[in-house]
Amino acid sequence: MTKINFSDQYFMQQALKEAQMAAQKNEIPVGAVIVCNKQIIARAHNLTETLNDVTAHAEMLAITAAAEALGGKYLNHCTLYVTLEPCAMCAGALAWSQINRVVFGANDPHRGFSKHTPPIAHPKTKITSGILQEECAQIVKSFFKDKR
Amino acid sequence: MTKINFSDQYFMQQALKEAQMAAQKNEIPVGAVIVCNKQIIARAHNLTETLNDVTAHAEMLAITAAAEALGGKYLNHCTLYVTLEPCAMCAGALAWSQINRVVFGANDPHRGFSKHTPPIAHPKTKITSGILQEECAQIVKSFFKDKR
Repeated sequence: MTKINFSDQYFMQQALKEAQMAAQKNEIPVGAVIVCNKQIIARAHNLTETLNDVTAHAEMLAITAAAEALGGKYLNHCTLYVTLEPCAMCAGALAWSQINRVVFGANDPHRGFSKHTPPIAHPKTKITSGILQEECAQIVKSFFKDKR
Repeated sequence: MTKINFSDQYFMQQALKEAQMAAQKNEIPVGAVIVCNKQIIARAHNLTETLNDVTAHAEMLAITAAAEALGGKYLNHCTLYVTLEPCAMCAGALAWSQINRVVFGANDPHRGFSKHTPPIAHPKTKITSGILQEECAQIVKSFFKDKR
């Protein structure tokens, strides 16, 4: 009998699968899943090029899909897993959603939300970083290397 | 012959009309228009309750609609008029859009983007505040007063 481990690593692997789908569409490979009661209720990947819309980041699409799945706009019992540190836009949206927890893989020193003060995140939101950091950073690096 | 004055005041009046439409739907009354070559290419108002989606701020909906109208995701020849100072989410989206200019009416000391450092706005975006400030603040104040 296989025991499925619903760990942060497991859910980040699912977010990485989404990032891979973005790469296949020639999108900057960022993926996200939203988990509620150990169940994935939303999956999304960056679609800014496909949709011609700067707001179509993985996190934004996941937030909208999760609210749709739950039938309510607050995600205070949910965790978002995303391969790259959210930007100010996405962190702002996550703050409005009152999400319980945000877990990200690779840091984004240039565009990441964590460099801003006062903090953009909701004060009650727990933040974890560095889950599958190498894999999450590598997929973005490979994408830009192939572009050159 | 009536001379139409395409001033900041004129376009902010149009944003206020959008805010009034939000109020009629029992939404926090914030409205926005996006202008390109003195022409309004997108209009939107806050729909977070109607759509059950925290990302459905007036500015976000206007950015998506403007990109659709232009057939491209960059708004570097456009001006956004919005009745209330954008939040971090909306300012982050405006930064990604590389919008030329943002004009807002009332300040939002609590949720406004301008309190954050380093700045969330794109360095090339010109910011103007205080256009029809009184009217823009009053519509929000009246909304919350009626709620009590």
